[in-house]
Amino acid sequence: MNKKIKVGIVGANGYAGAEVLRLIAQHPLTELSVVTSRAQLGKKVSSAFPALPCDLDFSDASDPLLKKCDVVFTALPQTAGASLIGELIDAGVRVIDLSADYRFTDIATYERTYGVTHPRPDLNKLAVYGLCEVNRQKIKSAQLVANPGCYVTSVLLPMIAACKATKISGIIADSKSGVSGAGRKADEAYSYCTLDENFKAYGVFTHRHAPEISEKLGQSILFTPHLLPIKRGILSTVYFEADDPAAAQNALKTAYKDEPFVSYTDTLPEIAHVAHTNRCMFSARFDGNRGIVISVIDNLLKGAAGQAVQNMNIMFGFDETSGLPIYAPI
Amino acid sequence: MNKKIKVGIVGANGYAGAEVLRLIAQHPLTELSVVTSRAQLGKKVSSAFPALPCDLDFSDASDPLLKKCDVVFTALPQTAGASLIGELIDAGVRVIDLSADYRFTDIATYERTYGVTHPRPDLNKLAVYGLCEVNRQKIKSAQLVANPGCYVTSVLLPMIAACKATKISGIIADSKSGVSGAGRKADEAYSYCTLDENFKAYGVFTHRHAPEISEKLGQSILFTPHLLPIKRGILSTVYFEADDPAAAQNALKTAYKDEPFVSYTDTLPEIAHVAHTNRCMFSARFDGNRGIVISVIDNLLKGAAGQAVQNMNIMFGFDETSGLPIYAPI
Amino acid sequence: MNKKIKVGIVGANGYAGAEVLRLIAQHPLTELSVVTSRAQLGKKVSSAFPALPCDLDFSDASDPLLKKCDVVFTALPQTAGASLIGELIDAGVRVIDLSADYRFTDIATYERTYGVTHPRPDLNKLAVYGLCEVNRQKIKSAQLVANPGCYVTSVLLPMIAACKATKISGIIADSKSGVSGAGRKADEAYSYCTLDENFKAYGVFTHRHAPEISEKLGQSILFTPHLLPIKRGILSTVYFEADDPAAAQNALKTAYKDEPFVSYTDTLPEIAHVAHTNRCMFSARFDGNRGIVISVIDNLLKGAAGQAVQNMNIMFGFDETSGLPIYAPI
Amino acid sequence: MNKKIKVGIVGANGYAGAEVLRLIAQHPLTELSVVTSRAQLGKKVSSAFPALPCDLDFSDASDPLLKKCDVVFTALPQTAGASLIGELIDAGVRVIDLSADYRFTDIATYERTYGVTHPRPDLNKLAVYGLCEVNRQKIKSAQLVANPGCYVTSVLLPMIAACKATKISGIIADSKSGVSGAGRKADEAYSYCTLDENFKAYGVFTHRHAPEISEKLGQSILFTPHLLPIKRGILSTVYFEADDPAAAQNALKTAYKDEPFVSYTDTLPEIAHVAHTNRCMFSARFDGNRGIVISVIDNLLKGAAGQAVQNMNIMFGFDETSGLPIYAPI
Repeated sequence: MNKKIKVGIVGANGYAGAEVLRLIAQHPLTELSVVTSRAQLGKKVSSAFPALPCDLDFSDASDPLLKKCDVVFTALPQTAGASLIGELIDAGVRVIDLSADYRFTDIATYERTYGVTHPRPDLNKLAVYGLCEVNRQKIKSAQLVANPGCYVTSVLLPMIAACKATKISGIIADSKSGVSGAGRKADEAYSYCTLDENFKAYGVFTHRHAPEISEKLGQSILFTPHLLPIKRGILSTVYFEADDPAAAQNALKTAYKDEPFVSYTDTLPEIAHVAHTNRCMFSARFDGNRGIVISVIDNLLKGAAGQAVQNMNIMFGFDETSGLPIYAPI
Repeated sequence: MNKKIKVGIVGANGYAGAEVLRLIAQHPLTELSVVTSRAQLGKKVSSAFPALPCDLDFSDASDPLLKKCDVVFTALPQTAGASLIGELIDAGVRVIDLSADYRFTDIATYERTYGVTHPRPDLNKLAVYGLCEVNRQKIKSAQLVANPGCYVTSVLLPMIAACKATKISGIIADSKSGVSGAGRKADEAYSYCTLDENFKAYGVFTHRHAPEISEKLGQSILFTPHLLPIKRGILSTVYFEADDPAAAQNALKTAYKDEPFVSYTDTLPEIAHVAHTNRCMFSARFDGNRGIVISVIDNLLKGAAGQAVQNMNIMFGFDETSGLPIYAPI
Repeated sequence: MNKKIKVGIVGANGYAGAEVLRLIAQHPLTELSVVTSRAQLGKKVSSAFPALPCDLDFSDASDPLLKKCDVVFTALPQTAGASLIGELIDAGVRVIDLSADYRFTDIATYERTYGVTHPRPDLNKLAVYGLCEVNRQKIKSAQLVANPGCYVTSVLLPMIAACKATKISGIIADSKSGVSGAGRKADEAYSYCTLDENFKAYGVFTHRHAPEISEKLGQSILFTPHLLPIKRGILSTVYFEADDPAAAQNALKTAYKDEPFVSYTDTLPEIAHVAHTNRCMFSARFDGNRGIVISVIDNLLKGAAGQAVQNMNIMFGFDETSGLPIYAPI
Repeated sequence: MNKKIKVGIVGANGYAGAEVLRLIAQHPLTELSVVTSRAQLGKKVSSAFPALPCDLDFSDASDPLLKKCDVVFTALPQTAGASLIGELIDAGVRVIDLSADYRFTDIATYERTYGVTHPRPDLNKLAVYGLCEVNRQKIKSAQLVANPGCYVTSVLLPMIAACKATKISGIIADSKSGVSGAGRKADEAYSYCTLDENFKAYGVFTHRHAPEISEKLGQSILFTPHLLPIKRGILSTVYFEADDPAAAQNALKTAYKDEPFVSYTDTLPEIAHVAHTNRCMFSARFDGNRGIVISVIDNLLKGAAGQAVQNMNIMFGFDETSGLPIYAPI
């Protein structure tokens, strides 16, 4: 067995950070060195989260152990991680950032979308967009990986393949996400009694993942997110027109045929087929030029922590599936 | 207090029929005379369904009491109710049919959609399409009312208003329904473990409600249904282009302003706002010519049994809200 | 039709108060005059709660209209309603209080249980414990009714009947409640992601409903509440020993046989049989002297708002079932 | 890395068998050789179950590959596996049986409980009861392991520890299980609409797990199971009296202190703390001699497939945690 790499996690109180913790704690090739959380500072992980029987204490983001890590996952709110990430990069630590800060090639789009000034345009130039199956080569040597948005991943994986094969236009992504996508919240809007037996749309015409999808596809798209009464999972129903539908269909079927985590399926995929796994499954139907893709992921795994760990596996030359589930539980 | 009308329900074992039973049993102006079910024949209603403390015994569709009713609700599979409905109409009994048999003006469309020969084209001519707020005048004197489909109702109420105001094109209805829409089933595909924490699309390009919506709107539309892990409720996200978006927006806001059951809302409506009520709530957002309507109903009430009882209220000159909930529970 | 009585609701932002509002707004014999909420002060009810299409504005508890009501429902935290209730009683307004303040005959038990000084021992003497089926005669003329606790109602209805028939000992009530029992909360402990697919016990040996049950049964009991991942409903599994099990069984079967809302059932009752109704259903099994009762109610209806309205119906001589559902939806 | 052992799974269509398949397919020290299912015979696993991307075809129980396995998991209905298990044992294959056939030392109790004649009393003598933490030494060399019942495991782990420390009497186990405990079913009683937002008791005084618990504890106990509207997980609330409560408390706290999968917790454990893991967590509260234990497991993992794989790990000298999750997802 090789020497394990040392891993730090910054912002492990949030759902994505906590899922990174869960995956890393059980990963055969890593050693969890340090986890930070302002909210849980000083507590033992297993005391704060009985579901996570880890003996480490939460420290804060100034913990010097972070700079001794081989890789640090940062899961902080927009712009909050900028100076830390800069210091880590300077110290030679590779960083996988789960915020949106480094996802955009075009900084103006980022600033308009998030209503902030970009904290580190210099780092943005270093960053590789961590959509694993599409950018694998660049990820291998990246010092800073920007982990893609959850909705974004569900739409991009099939649609990048289709767009390479023929001209695709009029894209509408009608997406539905489980509640964990909203993060850990003490908010009546996310209370059990508000969301159980309920369903709603939100962010109509205004959600921040629309510009991210648009930039990566190179075309304006329409995106409507909805909130499902489930904990985990995203299903995106993507409507579009294809100049050459047969080419689009063929690309969708074959583009990822050798990938362990991405697969085309003849039958329509369901969220339960991928929940608790790092997989993306999709299918397509065509009627003339009109196409519909149904794509599913687990928002916290392939849509966040799982893809982040997959990026780590790529960056460190591990088997890409190490520590990542591909079989979904009942 | 007026003399109560006598009501019969045929097919009260199914979810829609059982909900009609529940509403009628508690309606201030009706007397429940007879309920039929082949599956529950001879059992007392309260024995078959502990949730429904009704002392009647289930009889079958040949029960002579049916012809002594003022109105009979028929909730049978496609074509199965044809001869009975004919006999009831002949006997002067008014009928509200919850199947799809009499919903289509164009019989060829019906036959193509359901893969059957229309059992009674003669009755089809008599039938009034029971979309209450739109066809109220005709419903008043109808002898046979065809109760609209559940998905259909959620889409038609807003879109008929918009289409009257301006040219609307490119309609895509992405709809999501609770599981009760599938009916009472002993089927692993509808088991708790299959559907809990799950979500899926089905009937892509092929669902039978698409032709019903298309006929009533007078244009071809694209419709994709999905299955929500909730018991009741539909949310339809309807994408379209409007020649005159201001006119469309205005029509959506004002068309139903005096209606007790239908309302435009500035904030986005959620399924929980209308579940367990007979209401339809919708809202709209526009970006240039592109419009999005979010519309919600309870599939078993405004989408089935509630609208059926509303039709009865109209037919018999009752207050239209009699016996129909408009306040949603927590 | 008689002149309708005027009703006020104090604390209509909470779940129990909002459910009273929903019931009263649709009750055939009441006129809703005033609703108060500090949290929603000045907002129209329908703006604060799109599910409740009521045109009234929320006022505060000093609203002079309250004293012009025939009856006021108070749903405030412990002790917070004391001075208002005193003023209302002085003004001749009858009050139905949903807090625990006036539920105990023994004030010392109340004070020990809730860790407060009783605000109005004088009013406590006036109060009638509003367990409708048991105290109906006293409720008729009561000026102040103390509405029973939710868990308490599910246990007392069967166990009072059994205890009247024979000596019952060793009572253990293992109860399970839906989340709405905890009230409207912005608290991560009640968030969707915390409670979905989860289940837990709480308040072991310490829950405040234990002394309420004990006082009414005249014996010490053991009570363990649990939190179900559903919105509404309580199921209590009550273990006990009966000196004369046949007498206990007979009493359970017959005690409420003429009651519209309470019934013994041979098959085991389920929460869905009574959710969204004002019913209590229970069944019993015996093995020698050992007995087990399974009892179900809707915690917000028979366990709170429904029983409160039933109390109002009794107090004003209305049909006891007026405005109260007895059929459960699918 | 050692040579992997060859594993067969008989009855992989059921939930427990499918979970064994999922665990084994991702276990670092096993090679999945053969999976059988009458219902899915001839289908590729990944076609029958899109959630399980396994390329094997389902064969039937006569598949000769079974006898070439190092270990076979049998997950068949009561008595159905008897002749196969006999043949496997004769062929030197070690067997982990998930049915109840070999769980009882006393065959008469088994026969009375399951209403059958024991198919193989000879094999019953060989069988070791696979409660890992209690019978580890015997399991190491066992040829046939009888995997314990799910409810049983949640009760036995804490109560065996308590019973060793002092006299425990009057045990009542009030247990609540997720729906997967009932197995894969096409049955309206287990449909989504029947169970969502519902909760019920069943098998009062008659459930088959009561005699299993009683035999292992050496005393008669009272057991009431309930059905939770969740997919996975069991919480047992166990009431009892302890001669020496301090001794009981101490034993509960320390008995498993070095175990990776079993832990005492000061705060009350919840199902979500252990769902999707192989852990059992419990806590206890005492009031005089009266004690209450709250114990949680995942019914499909520590209660079935996970404990089965843990047994395999013990039998083959693997690290006992190999391939078994101990961190619970959000």
